[in-house]
Amino acid sequence: MSAKHFINDPTHLVDTALHALTITNPSVALDAENKIIYRRPGHAPQVSIISGGGSGHEPSFGGFVGEGLLSAGVAGTIFASPSAEQIRKAIMSRVDGEKGILVTVMNYTGDVLNFGMGVEKAKAAGLNVKMLVVGDDVGVGKAAAGKVGRRGIAGTVLVHKISGALAATGASLEDVYKVAKLTSDNLVSVGASLDHVHVPGRAAPDPNSKENLAAEEVEIGMGIHNEAGSERAKVDLPELVKRMLAQMLDSKDKDRAFLNVNSNEIVLLVNNLGSVSVLELGGITAEVVGQLEKSYNIKPVRILAGTYMTSLNGLGFSISILNVVNTDIGGPSMLQLLDAPCEAAGWTAPIRKETWEAKSTQTREGKDAEAEELKPSGLKLDPEVTKTTLTNGLQRLIAAEPDVTKYDTVVGDGDCGIGLKRGAEGKHFLDPP
Amino acid sequence: MSAKHFINDPTHLVDTALHALTITNPSVALDAENKIIYRRPGHAPQVSIISGGGSGHEPSFGGFVGEGLLSAGVAGTIFASPSAEQIRKAIMSRVDGEKGILVTVMNYTGDVLNFGMGVEKAKAAGLNVKMLVVGDDVGVGKAAAGKVGRRGIAGTVLVHKISGALAATGASLEDVYKVAKLTSDNLVSVGASLDHVHVPGRAAPDPNSKENLAAEEVEIGMGIHNEAGSERAKVDLPELVKRMLAQMLDSKDKDRAFLNVNSNEIVLLVNNLGSVSVLELGGITAEVVGQLEKSYNIKPVRILAGTYMTSLNGLGFSISILNVVNTDIGGPSMLQLLDAPCEAAGWTAPIRKETWEAKSTQTREGKDAEAEELKPSGLKLDPEVTKTTLTNGLQRLIAAEPDVTKYDTVVGDGDCGIGLKRGAEGKHFLDPP
Repeated sequence: MSAKHFINDPTHLVDTALHALTITNPSVALDAENKIIYRRPGHAPQVSIISGGGSGHEPSFGGFVGEGLLSAGVAGTIFASPSAEQIRKAIMSRVDGEKGILVTVMNYTGDVLNFGMGVEKAKAAGLNVKMLVVGDDVGVGKAAAGKVGRRGIAGTVLVHKISGALAATGASLEDVYKVAKLTSDNLVSVGASLDHVHVPGRAAPDPNSKENLAAEEVEIGMGIHNEAGSERAKVDLPELVKRMLAQMLDSKDKDRAFLNVNSNEIVLLVNNLGSVSVLELGGITAEVVGQLEKSYNIKPVRILAGTYMTSLNGLGFSISILNVVNTDIGGPSMLQLLDAPCEAAGWTAPIRKETWEAKSTQTREGKDAEAEELKPSGLKLDPEVTKTTLTNGLQRLIAAEPDVTKYDTVVGDGDCGIGLKRGAEGKHFLDPP
Repeated sequence: MSAKHFINDPTHLVDTALHALTITNPSVALDAENKIIYRRPGHAPQVSIISGGGSGHEPSFGGFVGEGLLSAGVAGTIFASPSAEQIRKAIMSRVDGEKGILVTVMNYTGDVLNFGMGVEKAKAAGLNVKMLVVGDDVGVGKAAAGKVGRRGIAGTVLVHKISGALAATGASLEDVYKVAKLTSDNLVSVGASLDHVHVPGRAAPDPNSKENLAAEEVEIGMGIHNEAGSERAKVDLPELVKRMLAQMLDSKDKDRAFLNVNSNEIVLLVNNLGSVSVLELGGITAEVVGQLEKSYNIKPVRILAGTYMTSLNGLGFSISILNVVNTDIGGPSMLQLLDAPCEAAGWTAPIRKETWEAKSTQTREGKDAEAEELKPSGLKLDPEVTKTTLTNGLQRLIAAEPDVTKYDTVVGDGDCGIGLKRGAEGKHFLDPP
């Protein structure tokens, strides 16, 4: 875990990051005192949707405020719920209340308590408010979770997207709540991290603490606030994904089996907890998609891979699976709502409905012949001598890679050693004799 | 620097991440042998744009293949240029050549050499190809860069977006090249990182190496392959941003002054090199925008903040500034091209032209009164006794924060200590006497 940050003061960090949301999305405004990001007024009347929670999970939730998604997000300090008073003010003065208000939060004690109080006060003042608590994380089983229930993690953003798109159509609060709850009820997620995350402003971690993960260890089910998961293991990615999918999908696991995945339409969300490289998140996504098809015969109809709900710059990812069901409101389907355009800086899913549904398999492989240009060189050689000489040279080149890389990192861009090594290892660059 | 990864084999990592691009954007196909991501055929004829380079910079460049952006991206192994043969195949068999082809690459020796060879071979085969080399990084000054020139970094994605949008309109190769070059000529960027990045498959770094950055040190101008920057310093974010902006904008700096920023329209891109938290990238963006206005009287007309060109999961960011100029082609402006919709998994800029141009300053602050509910409690107290008792209690609460946080991290979500501390420190929660 790196405890290095560009901004170390957590108060300044949260305040300026909230301000930045108004810079990167001019359609939202900030109530700085109450840490509320909200849509600027002037749009068509609709059910307002409010979410929020501790900071440190960006783009959740301020980054999801915008047309077709959330009406307001209320932020606490890092990993700490906003106060009931902040939430009450968001409900009563930062969104339109005419068509009703849905408040959707994740299942954490502080959030449920404070958002619940804010909602009750707004109701007492005469507003039409419904509250939904999302708990999609299967990382904690039924026995351990007890009456507290499951935590909410990244799957929550699918609830926001789908209910937000429905609200934008002018649907009633009853319908928006119903579809949000249906989405939430058909959702499972689980995370895995290679390390705990460091919170700016808190003491640097003790490198000798027994709580730290070992060099090759991964923690399955770790929460988005460093909460303990279900197990630590030294496993490779295929085995890790296998265990994660089993926690989400194994209907015989009595301690879990939270969801009967029975839809023909499955949505997959692979979420970066903050500092997995985009390259690696790609590799993880491919592994998850491959195992879903091979082990569960599931071919998701939509696959989102990106940074939707972080644990600061956590070195981990989560997998969420949404079992798409009939919304039963005589209106748009869950997929149509998921595909609907929106304008929130944090919602990064640019692929259109038509592209997903085209299922094109067209390639340009037929054009290969046009690019062929094998021309015999006409050179005469003793094959044995050539092979021995060349092999010896190439082996010395391969062995020299670390040194070449080292020096090229100093004077160049660090690719010379690997480039030479790959060339030396390759077979198809050699012309036929 | 963390050397922990979910996938340690660099070959498998790159191969599966390329495959994942076809999963998250079904409009693209993969030539796995040649590591080419390309648009599936069937779209309207247009100039094709090809880019590429070493892997490890995702979403650059495979993630930018799609309608309105790139036609193909050619990938090498991590931090190593693809071969001339891969590039030749991309040009000759993976894109439409009828209207001509623009090949845009960043200024690194391997890339310029290999892409240059690929382009020359395609030209020799009769194709109409132009090549543009982008060097936007001011991290290396004129004296040190010498004839090699500046490196290319994140600003390059603006060249791709603008030229890609123009190509999609059916513009000629001459115009697409002209506008791409104009964009490139009006671009400066600089990066800063808190640490080197670890490349999967390479040896773990020596923790005692003198090359490592110290605990509070940042390296200004570090490249996207760990290349040395111009200086290392122990500075806070405001001072860091000040120095970075000076390198980009100080017209009196004879070793730099690469660009005369004279446009009324400036585009700002704040790019995450991989593992800066989204929260912190927000704080950084706010700082950059604040200093641009205060010190340079620059108010950017578009502000993009996100993950566009990484150095794997590098703990750093870069700033790019585009001086928008007249495209002089009788067609769309640079801003119109930047705003144009596109469909590439890696281009994450959902804010519409209309939203940027509305410049709305509407808030809901007038509604504050509606949410007020100060009601006297009617309770009688001795103010002095109350104050002393309460203050003592609150101070003990504040002192206990580390322990409460510690235990709540074990059994809860870790916010209890901070929540209690913030409450104890707060003044406005106390009712008036």
